[in-house]
This record gives sequence, C-alpha cells and structure tokens, in this order.
Amino acid sequence: MPRVAIVMGSQSDWPTMQQAALMLKQLGVDYSARVVSAHRTPDLLTEFARTAADEGVQVIIAGAGGAAHLPGMIAAHTHLPVFGVPVKSRTLNGLDSLLSIVQMPKGVAVGTLAIGDAGAANAGLLAAQVLALSDSRLKDAITAFRQEQTDKVLGNQQLELPE
Amino acid sequence: MPRVAIVMGSQSDWPTMQQAALMLKQLGVDYSARVVSAHRTPDLLTEFARTAADEGVQVIIAGAGGAAHLPGMIAAHTHLPVFGVPVKSRTLNGLDSLLSIVQMPKGVAVGTLAIGDAGAANAGLLAAQVLALSDSRLKDAITAFRQEQTDKVLGNQQLELPE
Amino acid sequence: MPRVAIVMGSQSDWPTMQQAALMLKQLGVDYSARVVSAHRTPDLLTEFARTAADEGVQVIIAGAGGAAHLPGMIAAHTHLPVFGVPVKSRTLNGLDSLLSIVQMPKGVAVGTLAIGDAGAANAGLLAAQVLALSDSRLKDAITAFRQEQTDKVLGNQQLELPE
Amino acid sequence: MPRVAIVMGSQSDWPTMQQAALMLKQLGVDYSARVVSAHRTPDLLTEFARTAADEGVQVIIAGAGGAAHLPGMIAAHTHLPVFGVPVKSRTLNGLDSLLSIVQMPKGVAVGTLAIGDAGAANAGLLAAQVLALSDSRLKDAITAFRQEQTDKVLGNQQLELPE
Amino acid sequence: MPRVAIVMGSQSDWPTMQQAALMLKQLGVDYSARVVSAHRTPDLLTEFARTAADEGVQVIIAGAGGAAHLPGMIAAHTHLPVFGVPVKSRTLNGLDSLLSIVQMPKGVAVGTLAIGDAGAANAGLLAAQVLALSDSRLKDAITAFRQEQTDKVLGNQQLELPE
Amino acid sequence: MPRVAIVMGSQSDWPTMQQAALMLKQLGVDYSARVVSAHRTPDLLTEFARTAADEGVQVIIAGAGGAAHLPGMIAAHTHLPVFGVPVKSRTLNGLDSLLSIVQMPKGVAVGTLAIGDAGAANAGLLAAQVLALSDSRLKDAITAFRQEQTDKVLGNQQLELPE
Amino acid sequence: MPRVAIVMGSQSDWPTMQQAALMLKQLGVDYSARVVSAHRTPDLLTEFARTAADEGVQVIIAGAGGAAHLPGMIAAHTHLPVFGVPVKSRTLNGLDSLLSIVQMPKGVAVGTLAIGDAGAANAGLLAAQVLALSDSRLKDAITAFRQEQTDKVLGNQQLELPE
Amino acid sequence: MPRVAIVMGSQSDWPTMQQAALMLKQLGVDYSARVVSAHRTPDLLTEFARTAADEGVQVIIAGAGGAAHLPGMIAAHTHLPVFGVPVKSRTLNGLDSLLSIVQMPKGVAVGTLAIGDAGAANAGLLAAQVLALSDSRLKDAITAFRQEQTDKVLGNQQLELPE
Repeated sequence: MPRVAIVMGSQSDWPTMQQAALMLKQLGVDYSARVVSAHRTPDLLTEFARTAADEGVQVIIAGAGGAAHLPGMIAAHTHLPVFGVPVKSRTLNGLDSLLSIVQMPKGVAVGTLAIGDAGAANAGLLAAQVLALSDSRLKDAITAFRQEQTDKVLGNQQLELPE
Repeated sequence: MPRVAIVMGSQSDWPTMQQAALMLKQLGVDYSARVVSAHRTPDLLTEFARTAADEGVQVIIAGAGGAAHLPGMIAAHTHLPVFGVPVKSRTLNGLDSLLSIVQMPKGVAVGTLAIGDAGAANAGLLAAQVLALSDSRLKDAITAFRQEQTDKVLGNQQLELPE
Repeated sequence: MPRVAIVMGSQSDWPTMQQAALMLKQLGVDYSARVVSAHRTPDLLTEFARTAADEGVQVIIAGAGGAAHLPGMIAAHTHLPVFGVPVKSRTLNGLDSLLSIVQMPKGVAVGTLAIGDAGAANAGLLAAQVLALSDSRLKDAITAFRQEQTDKVLGNQQLELPE
Repeated sequence: MPRVAIVMGSQSDWPTMQQAALMLKQLGVDYSARVVSAHRTPDLLTEFARTAADEGVQVIIAGAGGAAHLPGMIAAHTHLPVFGVPVKSRTLNGLDSLLSIVQMPKGVAVGTLAIGDAGAANAGLLAAQVLALSDSRLKDAITAFRQEQTDKVLGNQQLELPE
Repeated sequence: MPRVAIVMGSQSDWPTMQQAALMLKQLGVDYSARVVSAHRTPDLLTEFARTAADEGVQVIIAGAGGAAHLPGMIAAHTHLPVFGVPVKSRTLNGLDSLLSIVQMPKGVAVGTLAIGDAGAANAGLLAAQVLALSDSRLKDAITAFRQEQTDKVLGNQQLELPE
Repeated sequence: MPRVAIVMGSQSDWPTMQQAALMLKQLGVDYSARVVSAHRTPDLLTEFARTAADEGVQVIIAGAGGAAHLPGMIAAHTHLPVFGVPVKSRTLNGLDSLLSIVQMPKGVAVGTLAIGDAGAANAGLLAAQVLALSDSRLKDAITAFRQEQTDKVLGNQQLELPE
Repeated sequence: MPRVAIVMGSQSDWPTMQQAALMLKQLGVDYSARVVSAHRTPDLLTEFARTAADEGVQVIIAGAGGAAHLPGMIAAHTHLPVFGVPVKSRTLNGLDSLLSIVQMPKGVAVGTLAIGDAGAANAGLLAAQVLALSDSRLKDAITAFRQEQTDKVLGNQQLELPE
Repeated sequence: MPRVAIVMGSQSDWPTMQQAALMLKQLGVDYSARVVSAHRTPDLLTEFARTAADEGVQVIIAGAGGAAHLPGMIAAHTHLPVFGVPVKSRTLNGLDSLLSIVQMPKGVAVGTLAIGDAGAANAGLLAAQVLALSDSRLKDAITAFRQEQTDKVLGNQQLELPE
C-alpha cells in the first residue's frame, strides 16, 4: 500500500515528476503515480484528494505547470501534507507555475519545492523525511543518502583548466 | 434572475470586485455576487459552477488574488464563459494573481482582465458585451456608455502648469 | 458567413494563431483569418473593427506579440467581445505581449488568454463558449470536446520509470 | 517539550513569524521560537540544526528575508522536515526571499510557503498536518479549524454596493 | 504655432506629463498639450496623428500607463518622430507601461524615455535636442540648461552625517 | 559626411546593430559605424561624443548589452539626440540592457528602442525621421518605406491550416 | 588622507550612502564623500577616477539609482577595486539600479552589494575588509564589530505573542 | 601558497568558474579551486571558511546557482573579502542565483559580480585588484591586461554589411 501518492497535471509532466518517484524508490518508500488534471478531470481530483487518507496515503506530491492549480486544490480537500512541484513551463520558465503553487492564502498550505527536476526529487526526499519521523529504518536510509551525496562532493573533483 | 454571477475568493476582494457589479448595474444587467473560496469552500465551488447554467447564469466573473485558482477551477466545471479578475496581492502586486489566472492550459479557458479595479470593471463590461450579442437594448446601453466616456475625454481638460 | 474573426499582427503569428482556427474548426464554428497590423495597417484595423459586427462577426480573436496593441485597439472600435492572445516574443518570452494586452484601462475590455499556443486554442474555445449561449448544437460540441479530453486523461497513462 | 521549532533570521521577522506561532497555539501544538541568524550566528545555526531532533523537535519552521539562507542551511544539517517562510523584504517585496528559499538544489529540501503572513500561518498549519499523521487528536483539531474557516466563508457575507 | 505636441492617455497622466511641458517651457519651446485616449477616443488619435505635421508640429511626445498603446498608435499614423513616456501604473509600477511602449515591432518606431517624471522631463529635453539641430538659439538654451545642472552638482553638497 | 553615427559596445553587437545600418542604407542616409566601449575605451567614448557634432553628425545611435552604459554616457557628453538600442544579453534576455539604457535620470535623455534586431532597425528609422524634418527627399523615402510595408501586410497572406 | 572614497550620483542618494560612511566611521577608517554624477558631471567622474589612486584612495564605493552608470564608469578609469551600491529607485524598487551595476561585461569589474541601506553599509564593511588585509588593527575592529552583532542576536530576544 | 581561493557549489559550476581561474592565471596570481557545497558539505564549508585566512588566503571567490547560499555563508565565517558569482541556473536564468547572493543583510557582505562567465572572470580580476593594492607587479599586470583589451577594441573592427 503506497504511503506517498504522486500526482501530476499532465502526462507531459512525467519526465519531471519521475524524479520524485526515483528518489522515493531509492529510499525504499512505496508510492503510486497518476495523472490527475485539476482542469480536465476536476471530479477525479476531488475524489482522489478525499479518499487518499483512507487508502493509506500519508503524503501527497503534486506537480503542475503554468496556472498550476493541482497542488492547492488537492490541499483544499485533505488534511494530509501536500508538497507542490512547479513544472517548468514553455513560455515563462516556470515562474508562473511557482507563483501559482506557492502563494496560497492563509488556511490551506502547500509546501513548495524548486522549479523542475530538482524540486521533484526534493519533494520525494521531503515526503520521506516526513515519514521518517515514525520510521527509523527510513531515517537511516535518508541519512545514508545524504552521507553518500556528501561523500560524492568530497570525493574526486575534476577542476582542470582547458589546455 | 441574474444573468451574470460574480464570485470572489474572499470577502476582502469585494472592494475590487464591486467595480464589476457597478458596471453591470450601470448597464442594467442583473447579477448576483457571493464569496466562493476555491481553497476554503471547494465543494461550494463545484456545486456553484455545475448549477450556474441551469439557474440561468450566462456569464461568470471570478476574482481572486495570490495563488488565484477560483476562475480556472470554475471554468473546469462549466461550459459558460468565465472571465477572471486578478486581485492585487499584498506582496507581489497581483503579478502572482495574473499568472495564476491567465496561464491556463489548452482545453479550459479563462478570459482574463487587468489587475485590480480596472480589470473588475472591464469584466463587467465584457460580460455585458457577450450578453449584448442577443440583446439589442443592452448593446445600446454599452454604446451609450462608451460614447459617454469618449465625450468625457473630449470635454473639459485641465492641463494647467503649476504657478 | 464567419461568426468569429481571427486577426493577428503579423504573418509570423500564424503558427500560434492557427491553434484558434483549429479549435473553431473542430467545434464546427465558421471563422475568418487575416493579418491586420495595428502599426503597419492602422486604417485597415479601424475599418475591420468598425465593420465586423455589420458583417455578421460576433466574436473577435486578436493575437499579437511584443508591444501588442492590436487586441486593445480593435476593442476600442467595436462593441463585440474581443479576446486577446499574447504571442510569445523573441526576447521577453511573451511577458511584454501579455502585459500589453491584459492591462487595459477601465472602459475598454480585452479578455486575455495564456501566452502562446494554449492561449490561442483557448481563445477559439472561449469564442465558441460565447456563441454556444444561443446555439445548443455548439454547446453539445463543446461538451463533447471537454468530455473527450477528460477521457484522454483518465485513459491510458504512461508513467514508467526508465530502466 | 516543543515538537515544532520556529526560527527566524532577525528580530524584525517576528511580526511575520508570529503567525506560525499563533496557528500552532490555536491547534494546540507546543512550539519554541528564537532568532537564529544564518549570517550573524552561523555557529548557533549549526548547533541548533544538529541537536533539534535529539531535543524532541519533529518539524522546523524557518523564516528569513532578502538573501534568505536560514531555511536551506538548517535543512543541510538535519533530517527533520524544514518548512521555509519568505519574509517580505523592503526593496524587492519578498521575491528575493522566495527565490533564495525555494530554489534549493537536488538533495536538500525545503518546503516553501507563501511570502509573508499567510505563508507563516500556513507553515504552522503544515507542520501540524505532518504531526497529525501520528496524532489523531491533532488531526481532529485541524479538521475543526478547516471546517471553521469554511463556515466563516459560507456565513455572513457583506457584499453591498456603496450608496 | 507649437512645434511640440504633448498628448497623454488620461487626465490622470498630467502630473507626470507636465514635466515635459515644464522642460519645454524652460527651454523656450512652444508646445501644445491635450488628452488623447487610444482606447476611448481612437478617432481623435487618428485625426491628431495624421494632421499634426500639417499643423506645424515637428515632434510628438506621448505618455500613457498600463497597456499603453498611445505612443505606438500615433507613430503608426505619422512620419514625425514620436517619443513615449511610460507613466507609472498603480499595480505594476510602470513595467507594463514601459514594455507596452518600447517593444515596438520593426518598421514603426517610438523613442522611449524612463518611467515617470524623469522620463517626461527627458522627453521634453530630447524633443528640444531634435529641434535644436536646426535652431542654434535652442541649442544654446540646451547647453545652458545642461551646464546649469552640472554646476548644481558641483556646487554646494550637503553630505553631513546625522549627529 | 555621415549624418548618423552608429556606435556599439562590442564587436559582438554588430549582428544586431547592422539592422540600424541596413535601415539607414535603405533610406539613403549616410552613416558611420564603429565599436566604442564605455568600459574598455572610455576615453574614446568621451572624444567621440564631444566631437561628433563638429564632424557633422546629427543623430547618434548607440547599442549595448548587459550593464549597458554606452548610450547614456554618450548622451552625457553631447547635445545631439541619442537613440539607444538594448542588445539581447545572454543571461537576462536583454531586460538588463533595457533598464540600463531607458531609466536615465532627469536632465540627460536617451530615446530607447526595443530589445534586439527590431529596436536596432527602428533606431535607424527614428534617426531618419528626425533628419527628415529638414529633408523632404528623406521624408518621401520614409513615406515610401512605410507604404511598402503596409502593402506587404495587405498583400499575399498565407494562412492555411496544416493538412 | 582618506583611504576610501564614497561617491554617489545625486545628493538624494546620501540618505542611503551615509550608511557606508557610518560603517567606515564605526570601524575607524578615514573616508571622503562627494556627489559625482556620471551623466551630469562626466568630466568630474573621469578626473576623480583617474586621480583617486594617486591621492591615496585604495577602495572606491559608488552608489547610484535607476540607469546607474557611476560604479561601472569609475571602474573603467581605475585599477582600484570598486564596490557598487544600487540605490532604491522610485519606480522599479532598485531592480533597475541593481542590473545596471552588476551586469558588467568581462574585463571591468564592480563588486555589487544589496539594494539600499544594507548594501551601502556592507560596501563600507567590505572596503574595510579589503584594507584589513594589510592592517591588523582594522582586522581587529572588524572582528569586534562582527562579534558585537553576533552577541546582539544571541542576547535579549523579544518574541512574545500579542495578548 | 594560493592567495585566492575559488570555491563553487557543484562540479557543474566549473565551466563558469574556470573563467575566474583563467583570469587569475593570466595575471599571475596563485589560486586554489575546489567544490564546497553549502548544502551537501556544510561542515566543509565552515572549516574552509574559518581556516582560509590562516592558510594564507587573502580573497575568496565563491560561485553557486539557484538558492545560492555558498558565498554568503562563507562570508559569515571569515573576515576575508568574499566575491560572489551567480551561476546561470537552468530555470530562471540566474536571476535566482543573483538575488540569493547579492541581497545580503547588513553586517555580512558579499561583493557580487555579473551572472555567468563574465562575472566569474571579473571576480578573478577584482580579486587581483584587491591584491594589487600591496603588489605593484600585479598592478602592472592588471594595467597591461586592461590596456590590451582597450587596444583590441581600438584595433581591427569588422563592421561590414552582409551582401
């Protein structure tokens, strides 16, 4: 039973949002992934958001681009923590996605990550950090992942000047 | 029976959105006005948007600020034309509101007006222009309003230099 | 006799603006399309905007990029509803087009759509939604189109991770 | 023992960040609050972030303005979830704060809320939502808070036009 | 007979645009000033722009705010040089005005000055510089004005620290 | 003897600035072109700006990118009209160039054109419009150019939909 | 003999730039302060920048707003390190000042500080840090200043909630 | 023993930051270069910043992209002058990097250079200018470099129009 649900506004968001899936997989967290469009499938959005908690989901990751309403509208229907990923848009580079997701009014919260791939991966990481509050094995996996990336920086560096 | 429904995300949007109401009143178009919050009353939003057409509404004007999801989410639930008004936000001057409303994906449309009071008034005017397509009396009222504002510009101008 | 007139500021806007034409064609709405430049053919603009209503046009879609004056100037000459499409510009990604179109002063309205292809398609859709207020066959066509895109999202999803 | 730690870069951020405290208080969640400056007290930052988990903290809320490094640097030192609040800055209205907090690189995550008061309140709410995953009483408090704000919107609305 | 015509989109632009008038007055250049709205008086705009040259006008200064179409549309109707002044707008601080005026397409030019008062004053100065090409008395007046402002900087400076 | 001097901050600006040269050539106006860097050849800048009028130059066109100081610094040294062209920059798309050129303080004016090629061409056109105030042959050439581009728009239009 | 020269484009920049003076005074560094306008006193700028080194100046701090050319033009005339302070502008909040100062081309450098008061104070601090490389007493003063501000944060904090 | 230390947040910043190294090499200044990530190796950052002065480093150049915390956090731990280079980011073109680096609060300073390659090269140049205050040989090298680039501009210019 997946503990994290990844949803995205369009099939075309998957190349970005799969970074969230890859992070969760790397950390050993079960997840589900599906396309749920705020504008083209609003009923599915409502149903998904309302039933997620009962189906065992504990954290929701929602990614969308442009007038990105998916994360905020899901948050409107659930008490689960929702993390939003602004997908880079074709015209405004994701600034529209970012502002549409992060500038929520008081009373309904979306924890927003960076625009694009890094944000999607970090949404997976942050979801795992939340779950790790009551899962010491997962906490160890996160600590190991973090140590690994630290070691990678400390390790072999290629800083030669061109001839 | 109101032909135009004005909705807004918060009571605090009314000083802006009343400009739409005032324009419609001036042109003799019946309207309704209410607060419908995408994030705090999502079920009301769905119900409102789904039943508007059956209750005789022909055009919907929706205003919101910040992560302004109201106009787009209403458009997701109805075939009626929806006009969106970006309300000026406290921190980003309404740029967030504008991008959240206007950058809709293909397939669900919101006709967006200017940020703030001018946009709200013009949403009322544009709604009237739509209704005037099958209402010659209203068309005359619009023509008269437009002529009046032309005359006002052509009339008395105060362009003195300070002493 | 076309019920929707599509105009654009330059031949180079056609790859964007044809999305409006394709949407109207798909929905079975007759339309005309022509280049009318606010700056290079201002007299044609005036003549076009003034005579459109008499020639049976009911909705005007106008697209332009950069200092995009076409939609607003057409709106200044007609009581027909005007929908504006900000064409993506070479230097500022269409932010200039968007602000030039949407920030109209009180008294002359342009319903503005998203920057680029999605906005053009949605201008076609919104024009059809306006016409559908008095055309039940068109309303059915819009409903069918909307249902089709909903079904497409609900249908086959490809969310596999790379090996 | 506080489960949520609120930190901020400067005494002058308190009028904003107290909204987080007020939300947590309203929901019955124990919290601590202190000024920790990334630039003026970097050692305190490191010590705080490293020991927070051992002292029973489960979620960290960090607010800062301008070149806002506090949330990201705390996240660099802990596996606890960190939520960032961009405080409105004097010159750029908090756009600098927002980008400095949200655009974190892959591997270290900060869940970012809206600029200013609404974001601070929502950071408190999101922290509570995280804690509520294993605290059904808190979940009920959140549900009640959410219902209350829904009722407030549905309740008495003051949408009169000026005389 | 005025050699410079100052036009503006609205009576409310006069506090800004009077800086152009004051500069021309200071330099001894005859000018006219009037409100001509691109959107509310488009016919007046066309008539004004077409007849200006015949009435002895040599340079046109046009100021407007928001979706500022006035300078570009005047330029579309005349071979006279047109200088545009972006008036500070209420919501976007004149960034919309600036982009609407300066981003003209190839073939119709507007020389654009700074947003607000400084830009209006400089429009007057630049117009005078153009006229001075064939008016040595005016060239001397400009040189004197420039020297005067240089002397003012070089003169008494008040750079004391507060006690 | 060239009546218009085109200067640019770097050899790499020539692909943009040659549009000014091409426009002047097309209109039959003699011009000179050279690289003058505000930052790398400040003495040349001063000498050029101070002597231009004496050498018969009547209008100066200056293009630069990034922190574009060339147009404003030339204007500081001459009473000739200066038109500035913001060259598209690699990182910020020319927004930095535009603001560096257009936001001049009161007392030293630069008439600024659009970012990039269109702006450069229009700088040439605007320079010609200034010279045409006392050159009826040039005025005819401009009128003919403008008519030609009008005819081109009115002429053959290719607005077919893809099969 | 002042080791740091503070220059600014206008008398009106002094309320900001005095923060640099106050910082230097607090650290015991001799400085001079004067208005040097890039646009209104370009000759003074050249003379100042060329002779500064010979007069014993070791670091130059230059502040300006809008199209802020002063720091970059000074840097073009000297081998001394130049630190630039973007003064907050009336219309664009100093974003224009910042981009005009920081986006210098390769080969002429300006070390740019934050917009406004904080940036001016930090320009003084950075100048002192440079001088402290060969002045151990000054290094001690900086260390003491830094410790003092650390202590201030660690000291009495006022984080009470309103009643 | 290197007098300048170049650090960067990621291996991927090297193509930009090597411009700093190349400039220092050209001017004959010894430097070191390494990757130090504020977020992935915060302890290394602290250790590096604290010990740099003792190891003979006199100037630190720090480059980073996105939420670029490296330069400011290094400055928080040292009294050495720190110059920051905003690396161009994938989504927001380095505007996020720039604001994250330059908008430092009062009391901890970072001298910020332009976004990308030019900024990195100028960070090297500015570091050399600082060192040249007590190194006349280096001052001569800088003067020679500056003269060389001046000569290059004055030299052969290729400003032919295409046939």
